[in-house]
Amino acid sequence: MNIPFKTIALIGKFRNLEITEPLLQLADLLANKNIDVLIDKDTAEHIKPNSHKKIALEHMQGRVDLAIVLGGDGTMLNVARTLGPFGIPLVGVNQGRMGFLTDISLDNMLHTITSILNGEFISEQRMLLSVSVLRDKQEIFKSLAFNEIILHRGGASGMIEFEVRINGEYLYNQRADGLIVATPTGSTAYALSAGGPILHPSLDLIALVPVCPHILSNRPIVLNSNSIVEFSLRHAAHAPASHVRLRADSHNHFDLQAQDHVVVTRHPSTACLLHPVGYSYFNTLREKLLWNKTI
Amino acid sequence: MNIPFKTIALIGKFRNLEITEPLLQLADLLANKNIDVLIDKDTAEHIKPNSHKKIALEHMQGRVDLAIVLGGDGTMLNVARTLGPFGIPLVGVNQGRMGFLTDISLDNMLHTITSILNGEFISEQRMLLSVSVLRDKQEIFKSLAFNEIILHRGGASGMIEFEVRINGEYLYNQRADGLIVATPTGSTAYALSAGGPILHPSLDLIALVPVCPHILSNRPIVLNSNSIVEFSLRHAAHAPASHVRLRADSHNHFDLQAQDHVVVTRHPSTACLLHPVGYSYFNTLREKLLWNKTI
Amino acid sequence: MNIPFKTIALIGKFRNLEITEPLLQLADLLANKNIDVLIDKDTAEHIKPNSHKKIALEHMQGRVDLAIVLGGDGTMLNVARTLGPFGIPLVGVNQGRMGFLTDISLDNMLHTITSILNGEFISEQRMLLSVSVLRDKQEIFKSLAFNEIILHRGGASGMIEFEVRINGEYLYNQRADGLIVATPTGSTAYALSAGGPILHPSLDLIALVPVCPHILSNRPIVLNSNSIVEFSLRHAAHAPASHVRLRADSHNHFDLQAQDHVVVTRHPSTACLLHPVGYSYFNTLREKLLWNKTI
Amino acid sequence: MNIPFKTIALIGKFRNLEITEPLLQLADLLANKNIDVLIDKDTAEHIKPNSHKKIALEHMQGRVDLAIVLGGDGTMLNVARTLGPFGIPLVGVNQGRMGFLTDISLDNMLHTITSILNGEFISEQRMLLSVSVLRDKQEIFKSLAFNEIILHRGGASGMIEFEVRINGEYLYNQRADGLIVATPTGSTAYALSAGGPILHPSLDLIALVPVCPHILSNRPIVLNSNSIVEFSLRHAAHAPASHVRLRADSHNHFDLQAQDHVVVTRHPSTACLLHPVGYSYFNTLREKLLWNKTI
Repeated sequence: MNIPFKTIALIGKFRNLEITEPLLQLADLLANKNIDVLIDKDTAEHIKPNSHKKIALEHMQGRVDLAIVLGGDGTMLNVARTLGPFGIPLVGVNQGRMGFLTDISLDNMLHTITSILNGEFISEQRMLLSVSVLRDKQEIFKSLAFNEIILHRGGASGMIEFEVRINGEYLYNQRADGLIVATPTGSTAYALSAGGPILHPSLDLIALVPVCPHILSNRPIVLNSNSIVEFSLRHAAHAPASHVRLRADSHNHFDLQAQDHVVVTRHPSTACLLHPVGYSYFNTLREKLLWNKTI
Repeated sequence: MNIPFKTIALIGKFRNLEITEPLLQLADLLANKNIDVLIDKDTAEHIKPNSHKKIALEHMQGRVDLAIVLGGDGTMLNVARTLGPFGIPLVGVNQGRMGFLTDISLDNMLHTITSILNGEFISEQRMLLSVSVLRDKQEIFKSLAFNEIILHRGGASGMIEFEVRINGEYLYNQRADGLIVATPTGSTAYALSAGGPILHPSLDLIALVPVCPHILSNRPIVLNSNSIVEFSLRHAAHAPASHVRLRADSHNHFDLQAQDHVVVTRHPSTACLLHPVGYSYFNTLREKLLWNKTI
Repeated sequence: MNIPFKTIALIGKFRNLEITEPLLQLADLLANKNIDVLIDKDTAEHIKPNSHKKIALEHMQGRVDLAIVLGGDGTMLNVARTLGPFGIPLVGVNQGRMGFLTDISLDNMLHTITSILNGEFISEQRMLLSVSVLRDKQEIFKSLAFNEIILHRGGASGMIEFEVRINGEYLYNQRADGLIVATPTGSTAYALSAGGPILHPSLDLIALVPVCPHILSNRPIVLNSNSIVEFSLRHAAHAPASHVRLRADSHNHFDLQAQDHVVVTRHPSTACLLHPVGYSYFNTLREKLLWNKTI
Repeated sequence: MNIPFKTIALIGKFRNLEITEPLLQLADLLANKNIDVLIDKDTAEHIKPNSHKKIALEHMQGRVDLAIVLGGDGTMLNVARTLGPFGIPLVGVNQGRMGFLTDISLDNMLHTITSILNGEFISEQRMLLSVSVLRDKQEIFKSLAFNEIILHRGGASGMIEFEVRINGEYLYNQRADGLIVATPTGSTAYALSAGGPILHPSLDLIALVPVCPHILSNRPIVLNSNSIVEFSLRHAAHAPASHVRLRADSHNHFDLQAQDHVVVTRHPSTACLLHPVGYSYFNTLREKLLWNKTI
């Protein structure tokens, strides 16, 4: 039988020793199948001694056929931002609690990964976002996001005010704690806490979700993923623009100045997730949002 | 110059005498341009005497190139359900308050309609929904909706419980006042009051919006418009299924029985709306939701 | 030791055979302590043969020192509406799932009830509401509520419109599915699903909670429990007033006509609940609303 | 007739030149009535030259019988925190848009103030909050709030986690952007944007309103104003406690450290507001929340 994954990278949750043993077990399983195993460099530092080859995430392009992530959704999010654009498919193993992105449990890991190696999996493409900050027409910050781009008041003492345009057309001036531009993947993350809708991950959409808007009728808006979303800060006495913070996936951030111009677009690449056969997004929703609890 | 609309139907708000004068003014304008004018039969009954030809909505297929509706969004909704599937484009004139669907004001009507006749308009296709009720595998109710399909407890004394499946896959059992399946057009109608997101009308999507769900984490879900949404009622002591009501656009309704099976799908036709040049959906949102009011 | 409860009534969930055995066990326990045991008449009909004395709920006034309810919150609600105004303290035993009002589990029942008989309990007074419907200045409907009074569109095809006055002062005209006037006890029932706040049950307050209001800025309002809340229906073409339904605790209902006037006030009596020592309202909230689940 | 206000302080919006002329007009009116007029020192700096006596806010205690504030709700909020505890009644004049706290318009100012001086007014006491931060059992920060105390993630990259206790009893561990403890006055400010209920200002209550809580069933809770609310931060890898910010009325702030303990209680003083005869809180709600707009 033909195994399509010749080289597989293993990536563990950052500085988490509990994943050492299952990760090495998995490495052995793969090695026994004559698969080349590469351990993520940061992960490997905490798993010494080990005889496996190491590789940094950013060098995996063209060298890795599949990446298996052991950790939680946060780990997967960080990995997907780097490996997604390289076209490397991702598999997520969780450490106990099922995640939206890490749907294989440690208990079933060896069995499920074996099935995936045998070609038994569901493949899914998930959209990514790009954000750029322009100052004096120069791009001074750029990032990718898998979940969302957030404009947020940060440490500002009051609400911030900003103008939003979609494809160049004026949408509104908003006073709020902030505004989220979420992907379908991000729709079950921070955007959900802010009152946003759940977007099925198969859809190419973005949701604009205001965070604590001053105008109570300001509701989440769902737009075509090809929309160009632009923000400009408005000067407010109580919230100097310099305090306003831009975030990508609660990870990268940038502190904005008053004249900065922010542009969010769909990233040309997608992240490819592989799920075990039997995977059900609706089942994950029920589990994670406790819809099946009797109360 | 070539005018593509040779025969135009005029339809007024049901039993509303105030539209008589503007409707006749419009009829004169069109007649002067050698356009055949047909007055909707129900409308004509309240505009006597008049010398214009009459025609029932359901006979307009193939005979009318354009329908102009004078009234509010409710009138447009009713007309669109009939004329949309006939492929007749629709123009909406409101009687004072801008509507989501009736975006031409009476004041500008003659001028704007003239421009539209000259080919100056923005054309837009809006999706429609179909609903069927099956009892013992026989279809016993069928309707079309432009805004939404609603499963609602009606006069039942407590919440109703129902199971929802998407493309045959189990989504959840829900206890709630009801559930809305909304089109993008309907996303700014009842679904918005129930906490649903705004879906841009250019999108082919449906939103499942629970009405007062018992489980507080039950949030609106946005799905591909090709999804097949199925409901089955669950027996509940306090809410006999016989009280549960199905609605299409708050217009047609059907009282369900316990074993009835409800199927909602996208309707193969769309409704075509013509807007004046300069039309902006975002502007309509700002106006209707009072986003531009200083408070 | 002095036992203050000489006569105790036992009331089971309506037509529920599962409570037969624990109810008879409890009756034996009480009889062994020389307490007079009376079984609610409706409950007794389903527990034959049994040798205990029977009594209807409405005849318990002055004859019963304590009522123990076996069932769920719904059963307790119905009992409290009758026995609360009689000044009879209530104890609630649940059949498996902890309730807001039935906080003793079947497993601990015999032990906990024994403690309560020994005077080890926390006593709590909960406010009740009265509702009257006036037609031509005559009272034509009257009811008591423990959770809430609901004005609801029932089977009406669209939203209903009504005017609300507080202590004679105009509050607003509202278009909505309905309006809830909730007690603190009711704040965790239907009102919570409609977006209302949780009111600590020790407070004398009412919450006005709109159900799916058309105006998105219409939010729940918390008022002094001494407020007189009045509703008048407004005529709406799409929602004839005759379809509008008034409910007390999802139990009693009354179909309103266009000129009817509804008055909600605090009921002069309270319902007295006895909880086991160690009872914690916050613990109940955490359990019922799944705040302690890891997700 | 007996005028009870012998000495009146006038306070204008900070660094706002537009209030100069009406403020001086008002000063003349009062002087002509033989009332001693004192101008707030900060206000006076921007109204030169003027011959009126100056006084700093913090020196007004015992010297001023009434303070008239010209500005918006923000100005009133700042003044009320200082003058409220001094027992000085406050009158608010707005500069164009009616405020919740500044209900007299510039147009009617001279007439309305004259009526108030004649004893025609409605007097209202509004509760205040105190917050203390304890570090190693020492109080290291203390503030007063009229609207709310806010625990907020500030510039932290993710949600913060904190434990909340009420009167020493454990309420919950919450992951969220933050938590608001709002007075009835503050219930229509930031807390409303975060989904909190409107609390009638005559009530002695506090509302705990979570900001974007991770657990979707975490809803606002209304408590007795005598409740002692305590927060302790929980360590979170992604949100070092040092970034968490405490705010009082979006004005004073303090950056918390991991072991800090925050205690919020009702302040022993109240702020006294004087309203013109005819003042209606419900009318203010309708105006400010646009309930009376036809849409």
